[in-house]
Amino acid sequence: MSFLDHIARCNAHDLSQFQPWLIGAARAGWVHRDFAAVLGRRPDLFTPGADFWHLSEALSAPQRRTEAVGAFLRDLAREGWFSAWRDERYPVTPDLKRPALMAMERAAVPYFGVRAFGVHLTGYVRRADGLHVWVPRRARDKPTYPGMLDNTVAGGHPEGLGLLQNVVKECFEEASIPVGIARQAKAVGAITYCHQSGMELKPDVQYVFDLELPEGFICRSNDGEAESFELWPVADVIARVRDTFDFKYNCNLVLIDFFVRHGLIAADDPDYFAIVAGLRRHPFGPGDAPG
Amino acid sequence: MSFLDHIARCNAHDLSQFQPWLIGAARAGWVHRDFAAVLGRRPDLFTPGADFWHLSEALSAPQRRTEAVGAFLRDLAREGWFSAWRDERYPVTPDLKRPALMAMERAAVPYFGVRAFGVHLTGYVRRADGLHVWVPRRARDKPTYPGMLDNTVAGGHPEGLGLLQNVVKECFEEASIPVGIARQAKAVGAITYCHQSGMELKPDVQYVFDLELPEGFICRSNDGEAESFELWPVADVIARVRDTFDFKYNCNLVLIDFFVRHGLIAADDPDYFAIVAGLRRHPFGPGDAPG
Repeated sequence: MSFLDHIARCNAHDLSQFQPWLIGAARAGWVHRDFAAVLGRRPDLFTPGADFWHLSEALSAPQRRTEAVGAFLRDLAREGWFSAWRDERYPVTPDLKRPALMAMERAAVPYFGVRAFGVHLTGYVRRADGLHVWVPRRARDKPTYPGMLDNTVAGGHPEGLGLLQNVVKECFEEASIPVGIARQAKAVGAITYCHQSGMELKPDVQYVFDLELPEGFICRSNDGEAESFELWPVADVIARVRDTFDFKYNCNLVLIDFFVRHGLIAADDPDYFAIVAGLRRHPFGPGDAPG
Repeated sequence: MSFLDHIARCNAHDLSQFQPWLIGAARAGWVHRDFAAVLGRRPDLFTPGADFWHLSEALSAPQRRTEAVGAFLRDLAREGWFSAWRDERYPVTPDLKRPALMAMERAAVPYFGVRAFGVHLTGYVRRADGLHVWVPRRARDKPTYPGMLDNTVAGGHPEGLGLLQNVVKECFEEASIPVGIARQAKAVGAITYCHQSGMELKPDVQYVFDLELPEGFICRSNDGEAESFELWPVADVIARVRDTFDFKYNCNLVLIDFFVRHGLIAADDPDYFAIVAGLRRHPFGPGDAPG
């Protein structure tokens, strides 16, 4: 296998299985045809069009949309949808620059094909014997991807926080990195992809951060989301990403981007350009014209 | 103005003014409708289709295409086309991974809308007082962009060289950087854009390299392409890119990519995602479906 297999896997989806849903003139997301029947039960909220769904025009303000849809989502959760309800809301927006059209419970977001944003940080150490990366293993009791390898720190981006604020918060919760160190995290880009898993669609943007950690510092889980942390020589991380699916699917792209930015993949590698271009597929969303 | 103005400028083009030209089933490039009349003079070489041009099927091998088209281009040069003839050939290929369909004189490449590849290197110094970047000014007698600011080292990518080989060669020619130092250059990604200038179209890929230079090292022009070199504090480079058009147009994107990768633009900057996505517009060529 190769790095490109991870890029293909993160971008595997069949948009023909989905219908767009709109808020006003803006596409807010995509719903799977098998899930669309559920929307059809609530014509007061979702009106069908030719091959799309429209959020009720009566819900004219973000707050009203959030509340009306939120109540419906709670009903669905009681029926067994959205197994990992979190009481955490994501903004519904194609980019964080524009005000959110509404907010939506995180667990429901991929069922509505709403773009989610996240922060992923690679904590690394420059040792005399070379670059090392802190690699956590996800707790076995996590609802999603239990036991898999993960980025040093990673978290979804909820409404109402700045990106760096979120990084600092997640650094402390996930890896016990104190604020004074976490604030040195550098924003170094973003990756994008569009991943389908059954009825769920994730046309997501992950903001990427690097954080150089002092040699003596030890990453430890604070909130129990990681079972363990290990400091790996970067060559081992490269081999594990290239040759296995041991990391949670989208974490591979963050690490491949780290390898590219740190000059660890040769420009003369025949896959080089495909890798670089592949880390930012669908930057403006699936189904959009190229920029 | 802002960084986004440079991205918009590098991507300014109107594809409706162009017609694709094909070699077999592959689109080799684009010709401006005003230039297409010139192709029409040589029906033995270029056959018109509905709204495209086809290179003669009789030219079945890359070498024959290169020679037959090359002789025609020399005729055109004698008529006054392609002011800066260089006797240097570029491969005609959508990416360097695939074998070239043919090769073409560099000066003619943008008239045929053929994707060109290049290497751009940022030479920087970590000083006690912060990051500094080596900035050359192009010689006043250069045929293209005379007197403008440039990337530390930059060059087109000719047929037959590896990318790192090309970087090492250009480092010596343009900045007198010896092989031993130049070989430490790190490939750190690629930028893409599609720039129109009159009848010329440049749907180009620039491979991006970083080279950390020792504090005492002085960049000097070897081949006379730069009039001077200065070591600038990175804050001055940021301001000059953000606020002026003093750098050659595509060099701005390479520097903006440097700023992103080195954590010099905040993730919470409202333009952040548009900048990151904008550095890799048209990665698979203009007019192609999104990846």
